[in-house]
This record gives sequence, C-alpha cells and structure tokens, in this order.
Amino acid sequence: MGSLLSRIESPADLRTLTDDELCSLAQEIRETLCQPLESRSVHFASNLGVVELTLALHLTFDFARDRLIWDTGHQIYPHKLITGRHEQFASIRTRGGLMGYPNPDESPYDLFMTGHAGCSVSTALGLKMGDELMGRPERKSVAVIGDGAFPSGIVYEAMNNAAELNRELVVVLNDNQMSICPRVGGVAKSLDKARMAPMFHDVKCQLDEALHKLPLVGHSFERAWTSLKDMVKAGVYGGMLFEQLGFQYVGPVDGHDIKTLREYLQMVKEQPGPTLLHVLTEKGHGIASASEDPVTFHTPPVFEKVENGVISLRKSKSVNFTNLVSDAIREQLASDKKVCVMTAAMCQGNKLERSREEFPDQFFDTGICESHAVAFAAGMAKVGARPIVAIYSTFLQRSFDQIFQEVALQNLPVTFCLDRAGFTGPDGPTHHGTFDIPYMRIFPNMVVMAPGDASDVQPMLEFALKQDCPVSLRYPKAAPAQIERAACPIEMGQAEVYEWGTDGCIIAIGSMFGEAVEAAEILREEGFDVGVINARFIKPLDKRTILKAVSELPFVMTVEEGTVVGGFGSAVLEAACEEGIAANHVYRCGIPDDWILHAERKEQLAEVGIDAPSLAAKARELAALFGPKENSLEEVNSCKQVG
Amino acid sequence: MGSLLSRIESPADLRTLTDDELCSLAQEIRETLCQPLESRSVHFASNLGVVELTLALHLTFDFARDRLIWDTGHQIYPHKLITGRHEQFASIRTRGGLMGYPNPDESPYDLFMTGHAGCSVSTALGLKMGDELMGRPERKSVAVIGDGAFPSGIVYEAMNNAAELNRELVVVLNDNQMSICPRVGGVAKSLDKARMAPMFHDVKCQLDEALHKLPLVGHSFERAWTSLKDMVKAGVYGGMLFEQLGFQYVGPVDGHDIKTLREYLQMVKEQPGPTLLHVLTEKGHGIASASEDPVTFHTPPVFEKVENGVISLRKSKSVNFTNLVSDAIREQLASDKKVCVMTAAMCQGNKLERSREEFPDQFFDTGICESHAVAFAAGMAKVGARPIVAIYSTFLQRSFDQIFQEVALQNLPVTFCLDRAGFTGPDGPTHHGTFDIPYMRIFPNMVVMAPGDASDVQPMLEFALKQDCPVSLRYPKAAPAQIERAACPIEMGQAEVYEWGTDGCIIAIGSMFGEAVEAAEILREEGFDVGVINARFIKPLDKRTILKAVSELPFVMTVEEGTVVGGFGSAVLEAACEEGIAANHVYRCGIPDDWILHAERKEQLAEVGIDAPSLAAKARELAALFGPKENSLEEVNSCKQVG
Repeated sequence: MGSLLSRIESPADLRTLTDDELCSLAQEIRETLCQPLESRSVHFASNLGVVELTLALHLTFDFARDRLIWDTGHQIYPHKLITGRHEQFASIRTRGGLMGYPNPDESPYDLFMTGHAGCSVSTALGLKMGDELMGRPERKSVAVIGDGAFPSGIVYEAMNNAAELNRELVVVLNDNQMSICPRVGGVAKSLDKARMAPMFHDVKCQLDEALHKLPLVGHSFERAWTSLKDMVKAGVYGGMLFEQLGFQYVGPVDGHDIKTLREYLQMVKEQPGPTLLHVLTEKGHGIASASEDPVTFHTPPVFEKVENGVISLRKSKSVNFTNLVSDAIREQLASDKKVCVMTAAMCQGNKLERSREEFPDQFFDTGICESHAVAFAAGMAKVGARPIVAIYSTFLQRSFDQIFQEVALQNLPVTFCLDRAGFTGPDGPTHHGTFDIPYMRIFPNMVVMAPGDASDVQPMLEFALKQDCPVSLRYPKAAPAQIERAACPIEMGQAEVYEWGTDGCIIAIGSMFGEAVEAAEILREEGFDVGVINARFIKPLDKRTILKAVSELPFVMTVEEGTVVGGFGSAVLEAACEEGIAANHVYRCGIPDDWILHAERKEQLAEVGIDAPSLAAKARELAALFGPKENSLEEVNSCKQVG
Repeated sequence: MGSLLSRIESPADLRTLTDDELCSLAQEIRETLCQPLESRSVHFASNLGVVELTLALHLTFDFARDRLIWDTGHQIYPHKLITGRHEQFASIRTRGGLMGYPNPDESPYDLFMTGHAGCSVSTALGLKMGDELMGRPERKSVAVIGDGAFPSGIVYEAMNNAAELNRELVVVLNDNQMSICPRVGGVAKSLDKARMAPMFHDVKCQLDEALHKLPLVGHSFERAWTSLKDMVKAGVYGGMLFEQLGFQYVGPVDGHDIKTLREYLQMVKEQPGPTLLHVLTEKGHGIASASEDPVTFHTPPVFEKVENGVISLRKSKSVNFTNLVSDAIREQLASDKKVCVMTAAMCQGNKLERSREEFPDQFFDTGICESHAVAFAAGMAKVGARPIVAIYSTFLQRSFDQIFQEVALQNLPVTFCLDRAGFTGPDGPTHHGTFDIPYMRIFPNMVVMAPGDASDVQPMLEFALKQDCPVSLRYPKAAPAQIERAACPIEMGQAEVYEWGTDGCIIAIGSMFGEAVEAAEILREEGFDVGVINARFIKPLDKRTILKAVSELPFVMTVEEGTVVGGFGSAVLEAACEEGIAANHVYRCGIPDDWILHAERKEQLAEVGIDAPSLAAKARELAALFGPKENSLEEVNSCKQVG
C-alpha cells in the first residue's frame, strides 16, 4: 500500500494533502487499481478515469453529511480507497471481500447498492427532497453519471422532475465518450458538440456583442430577449440540451485536473436549482494500454505481464454459453435477411462484435435503453422482421412493461436471448439473473426455454426463430455442460428424458442439466438409480413427461438457476395440482428468496445447494425419506422423450 | 349516424369531400363521440381534441401502406370512426363491442393494442426499420404522441436512437398542455416556450439579420456558424429540445385547422431524417363543458342532461377502494410529516386531489414517469421519509427494475399502493392489473398484502407505514365488500379466519374475500359447510393457518383477482410442498393464462369463474369429488386467527 493512501482513513484526511501530494495520491490509486488484476478480473478503465474526479468531489463536499450517488457503480473503486477501505481493497469482488459496486453494508459513504445504469439522478433528487422533508435542507446532493448511461430514459425523467422541483441538485456528467462500447445516439452527438465548445470562445464574445446591439422591440420583449440570450449562450457552449431540460449547464471542464475540478465543483455547489457540470474524462487515463483500448480494459482478464508499460492479457480459452449463442445468432443472420439482432450497449458482453461487422444492416445497438430496444424490436417484428433481443437477464427487467404490452399482448415473434441468467459470480446481486423465469412465464403467448447444454443452443435458437410468438431463451455466464447422448430434436413443450431412474428423478432446467447429470453419476456410484430430465421448456411445460415422473417415482427434485419463488419448480407444482397429482414428494432446488452476494459462481451454486454434490446430497436425503416406489419404465420412447 | 360519416367506409373516402364537408364531418364526429356517454363512461376530451388531426393525417398519408401509431391509444375514437367502424361505434367499450384502444383484431389500421403511454416513437421507428429490412423503404412511419406522454423516458430513448439511425420518421407532438391532469416538469416548460413562439416572429427576423451582419472569423468557423444559426432559429421557435435530440423541429401549428395541418403534414412527410411536428390542440375542443374542464371530461361519468350546451354529469355515490385508500393516505399525511405520496400523472385516477391541496409539501406528481417515481421514492426513504407510491398495478410494471434495485435490494420502506389491481372492466387487457402478485412476491424483503374488504384498508396502510421494509398493497377498481365481523387487527403474515367450515374452504386474497363470503352463503343454503379465509398476506404467507386448512379439509380453493401463473395460489402450493403436504385437493381460481377483453368487471369475474356463483359452483364440484374428510376445529382462537 502506498504511503499516501495509507494516511487516508476518511475523506477528511484528503484536506491535509498539498496539491502535489494529491497528484501523487492519484498515481498511487492507479497503481492500487492494477493490483487485483494480477490474479483476477475486476473493473478497471472506468475507475482509472475518475481518480481525480473522486478526489475533487470529496475535497469539495462533505459526504459524511452531503449525499453522493455513483451511477451504475462500477467506477466506485477510488471512492472505496479513500473512504476507509484501502486495507480490504485486495479482497474486492471475492467471497466475503469488498463488493465491486457500492455497498451500504461496507460504508456509510455508499448510499445505494447499484449496478443498473441511469437511476442516480432520480435517487439523488429523492435524497434531496427527503432531506428537505426531514428538516435538513442544507445537505447537498450529487449524482455522478457517465455519458454512456445518459441515454437511459430514467435520466431524462429525473431531469424533467428536477426542473419542476427546482431544488439544489448537482449532476456531474462524467463524459468519456464511451459506454462499455462506444456510445451511440442523438444525445451523444449533442455531447460531441459540447466537447468542442471551448473553440467557440471568440465567437461567443462576438455574438454577445451583436446581441447587445440589437434594437429592443418593446418592453414586453425584454424578458424574452434575456431568455433568448441565455439560450444562445448555452447553444454556443453546447449545453443546450440540458438547459432545455431545465438544468443550468456548466462546463466542459478537464476531468483530470484536480485544481480546476475543485473550482468548478465549488461553483456548482453554490448554485441554486439543478445544475449539470460537464466533466471530460478519459476512460483508462494514466495507463496507456487501458486508455488505448478502453473496451477490452473495461473488465480485462488477468494481466499476464507488463513490459515497458504495455499490458498483456491472459487469453481465455473456455467456451461459454455466450460464445455459442453469439455463433448461433451470426449463423441465423447469415441465413435469413429478415433476422436482426438488438443489443443495449452490450455488444462486447454479448460477443456480438462479429455480427456487427459482418451484418451491419441487421445489427442494432440502441445504447443503454432496454425499454426502447424491446418496443423497437416489436415494431420490426410487426412488419415481418425476426428480431433477436440480446440483453442480460437482469437488465431486461427494465423492459418488463414493453415485453408485456409491445410483445406478448400483440403476440409478436420477438426472440429474447437472456444472457447472465443465473449467478454472475463476482458481480453479485445487482447483476444476477435471478427473476427471469417467473417474470417471463407470467405472460400469455410467451414460450420460455433454456438450453440444457452446449448441443441445445443452436437448435433452440433455430426453433425459436421459427415460432410465430415471442420466445425467451435463458443461459448463464458459464461454460455449458457437454453431455454425450443421442440427438433429440427440440419440439414445442417437450422435455428430454436423459435417464429415467427408479429411485427418483432430478428435473433440471437449463444450466442445471449438467449439474444434475453429475449428481446422478455420484449417486449411481453409491448404488442409487436417480434419473435426469432436461426440461428444456418452462412454458409450455412438458406436463406428460414431468407429471409421469411425479406420479411414478419415489421423489422428484426440480432444479433451476433462478429464484424458487414462482419459478420452474412452481410451474411443476401448478401442473401437478391442475391434474390432481400429489406433489409432497417434490423438492424444489434453486436460488432462495434472498440476495446472494458476490463470489465465484461455483461458490454461489454450492452456497444455495444447486451444484452437483449438493444435489446428490439432497437426493440421498430424499431417497431415505421417501424410499422406493412402484414405477413403470415401459413407455420411454427411443428418443427418450415421452412424446 | 350523420350523413357524411356514413359515406366514409375507409380513409380514401375522405378525399371525395370538400373543405367545407370536412369541417362538417368534424362536427358530426364530435356529435358521435357524445353518443356513448348517454349510457356509460368512455374517453372523451382527448378524442375531441384530435378530430381535425385525425382527418388531416389520413388525408396526407395512406395508412393502408404507411404506418400510424397513436401513443397511449385513448384518443383513437375518431380514427376508428373513419376506418370502417362507425356502424359498430355505439358498442365501444362493451363486451363484444369495439375496444376503447387500438385493436389489430378490429382493423388493419390499428397496428398495436396499446394503453400504456410513451412507446409510440419506439414502435414507429421499429416499423420503419422493419419495412426497410423487408425491402419496403418507401413506407412512411408516423407516431402521434401527447405532450402528457412526452416525459416518459422511453420517448427520449427512442428519439436518441432515431437520431442515430437517421431515417424518415414523423413524430406528431399533440400538445394540449395536459396529461390526464395538467402536465408538469422541465419538458413542459420547454413546450410552453414553444407555444409562445409565433409571438417571436419579428424578433426572429431581426436576429437573422443581425447574425448575417456578424463578421466571419475565418473559414473554419463557417460550418460552425451555420449550425449556430440553426440552433438560434430553433431556439427562437422553441424546438431546441428536439433539435438537440437530433430531430428536425417544425411548428407549432394550429391543430384544429385541417387545411394548415395538411400543408404541414405534407411538408414533414417529405423531410429526410426524423422530424417532429408540434401541433397545438385543445383537449375537449368543440364541446364547451369539456374544453373548460378537460380533467373531469377525460373519461366523464354518464351525461345526465345537456342544457344550452352545458353538460351535467351524473354524480356517482358508490364508495370504492380508491376512495378508501385516498382517505387513508390523507390521514397518514396529516398525522406524520415524514409521510409523502407520489403519483405518476394519476392524481385524479387515484383521487389524490385533496392530498395535493392540503399537503403540497408531501405530495409529488412526477408526470408519466413510473420508473423515476419509484427510484425517487427510494431516495426519500433512504434518508428517513416514508413515501407512498400510488401507481396503478399495470403502470407500475414500468418500475419493475427500480422496485428490484432501488427499493427491494436496499430494503427501503417504500409503500406501494397498487390501484386497478385486478380487472379494470371496459379498459381491457392493457389496463388490467393481472401480474402484480407474481411480480411483487419474487423480490426478497417485499411484503405483499391485499385488503379483503373496506374495513381492512385503513389498518393495512397504517401497518405498512410502520414496517422497515417495502410493502405492497393491491386493490381493484371496485366497490369493496363490507363484511360484518369482529375486529381482527393486521399482524405480519397473519390471515383472518372468517369461518372455518367442515366440507372445505375458500382461501381468498384481497377483493375476492367478498365473493368468497357470498359463495359460502350460497353453499350454506344448500347445506354445505364451506369456510372462508381472508388471507390478507401473499408474502409472508400465513403458512400455519393456510396449511392447516390444506392438511385437514376435504378440499381447498384459492382465489385471487390476478393471474394463476405464479400467483397467490402458487404461493400456497409452494408452502404446502415445502412442508411435505399433499395439495392435490387444492384448486386455484384466478385469471387464466390468457388476455381477457374489455367488458364490465362483473362480466369478467364471471367469465373467468371468480364471482360468487362461479366459486360456489366450483366448490360444489370439489365437494362431490373429494367428499368429507376428518377435521379438527378445536383451536381456532377468539380472533379467528390461527396465531
């Protein structure tokens, strides 16, 4: 740990440092940010970009009283380092260690546990109005939001409301010209204009002069003129968009110059009404490799070596669901020009770069706008296109209402590819895809599927694109199982019986198929004959196969990488109940009704009891409890489907 | 039916009319819009406002080929009248009749069944890109959106994306200065400036002249100057917000002058790139009572009499859940200054007008911004305030992700009051509150409740505000039952046993308590002893009471005014399964996995089998099927709670 950083136990200690020491501290922070990457992947370039901004904010405000919200939250590391957590920093994103996002359980300086973009202006405004209601109107409220998050509709909703309430509120726009991928859209163009603004300085003076020389047409026009001049000024400076939304615009200002930042922050701190400070930062600043390739260095793999300041990254060779789906999508784009794919600023995360390059007319990046992306896809589907919406499970929650109204209610053939459905490991509860099984299956018309292993992926996407209704596919951020077996084509509402078993059965959906097969193998070695069903469909459920298992076998376990509240297991219970079949020998495994913290995915699976050893243990327990039951194996067909 | 309207079988017939005839047609349409109100409530003022706009749109475009989306959709009546549906118009909003919103099943001129605001720009852009992908780039795409819907974040997301894609797209901003209630926010102020713009005409000319006189500072500045002048021009005209978002702004134009509208629409039809036409309309135009009080006349009650052009409305005397909740909210605002209430432009629908007037500091109307409203409430709750978020069940779907991240994940004490939870009668599937039980109960920390009758309302809200976690209360748009019985206080996770019964039991949640009690009375007269439980809590479920009923009684019926997929009944099955109790004698009544069309709520309850007679019939059937079972009544306590 650097010598300066070790002196900073709380932000107040920053005030004891000279300007030069602050610069050295920034350097130390950057070195510290590199350390975890020697052993694992953590957020990087975004944190390098806000080192000076973090220092300047804590030097200007007192966030022991004032309120600070970091939008999204993956740029929180420098803030953690100077708010009493530098000694635990090495543990970041490991089980029991610091969280990679803000976490109120770690520090009173972290107000909200966040990870989804765009909500900071809303919560900061809420904090301001809450403080006012509680008789503390003097407390300041600050939101720091990236330009990548700015196209999120909720930002605009919040600014609209802030203008109406007209309270002191500081929004710091951290403009690094990037989302995780390069930013897109009309707002980005507006920001680009603003970045160029200092060039216009002379023009502005001339214009001011010219405006003064214009004749006043009459008294009634005076106020209008003042407002017009303000508008022209903001237009020249490039902040017109914000002025139109009712904010005072200040900037742009160099986000790596602590002194200037402090001056400007002090200025906006004193402004009445909502103010936006436009700060220009460089993602990856101070580490050449990161600033040159901020996309790769957003959350880079482990550093293999650093030579002459150039960082080499360890290459990953593992195949995961994302790769397989990405390949399958590209194949579909190639074979049918009606197929297109939407991402909401997650081209890299969804590994769609090749699709973007090879099929630019069939590729759409909407920016961080999940609600729009889904409604937009619905419009395309309405006139015959076959859109694939590729959005992480947790972020697709932002489209819940559009999935309802624009897609399911119209019964339009939109295919949803829900990546990160299940545990996301070190990202933690803001990023886990825990809820999509219940939230997708409640809508009429929706088909809800999950590939059981690698071989299910391509046929399942092909099947989805042939349907005349919305279809949802879910898969986690993990290497899929590769289960050797006879081919069994995807058919609507049909599960695949992998092995029937006589002592009991594990009915697995999606990623849990591999764990179930492994559990069955463990049990077989112990002399138990426990079957495995690859359910494939959550909706429509393969009632015939599944209820046969429930009726005939001593016990049945359902297992899903998602919440047990209203999930796949509940769908099985509903089906049994509808057919009057007792299900008191059914055990539902899945994510419990609780928040599961950051750790490795394997650790999380074990923690909630859905890895192979846990499933085997539970099956052993159930076998002891329910004993053997008469069962009939006779009619399992050659495909091992109960067709 | 008027003589001109009867000649309009399709929009093409409009072209046979002279200008004078078009004006007469507009008058006839207004008269026709009044007719349903002689017998029932329908949308009114918004439809009166768009009569000329509807005619001008269909005269300028050919929507047999081009694409038209009416945002929200309650202003679709004139469009229905001129697209071959005037003969069925008298049936609007009745069972089997025309829907009060766009309905693709009625006409190819209705593209999307909508009801939620703000998605039109997204779908129109999707239609445009879809047509392009399908090789029909010549088709035009038009979205008509009200200024009330404009603060919805998805509009901004769509405009941002449209600017990026830069295709021909016409957005008609129907600016009547209203949401259902008067509009609010920074965007509204920006629009107000624009409305004043014609006054600035002289100023604009002078400014243009002045700008021409300014010296050119050098060649490199020329392009900048051009762009600057465009900006100034748009600023003067008031459309700067849209220009900044990347749209070309045209207007404002008088929305009741068909000839001018056609000229402007023709102009924007030919524009390359995305264009916004700002149309000024008057909500209620042409009917004095409606234009003077557009809030009341949005969906007015039945016309009692019309005298000298003044419309008297029939007064409603019925007490419904909304009134009771509104009274309870006002009581809480009065007794605790930390309590505040948020509405998303539904002050009237939620009957919060008195709260707004009496407690202005504790009342917040965010505009149609459900996502922001919830995140904003979370911010307030974080610092000690006790916000109540009063949003209809169906619209709260737009806050799904904020309920997850900003509220449930932080375990903040936000109280959700979900009005219209259940059937909404004539509004139909876009408005029913079908999904909130499953979508609320999946989140850890959330308490999910529903008042069984009138007497539950006030104590339940009081209870909710005492909790240190998020709480959700749901109730339909209906008169609550008033069940005479001994007082039984609200306690966490405790159901109320109204009557135990020996033949079976109906476990009702919320609004279904009254129907269950009535069903039990019907059954009692027939000699059956069927008990009734007022469940009160969906989460935490009263396992002890409910599983006692499941264990001991011959049959159990669960009943909820919500989807049976993952709903209350499923929660009961989950609980039984967890305790190893067979539930094959449980029958789950609720809204089936299908879209239920517009009708009276009573008709809808009967259609899906959850009104009292249907419940009694089902119980009779179950009693026959399962026969009597040994049961133990002994320990029902004095409060009739199994405590």
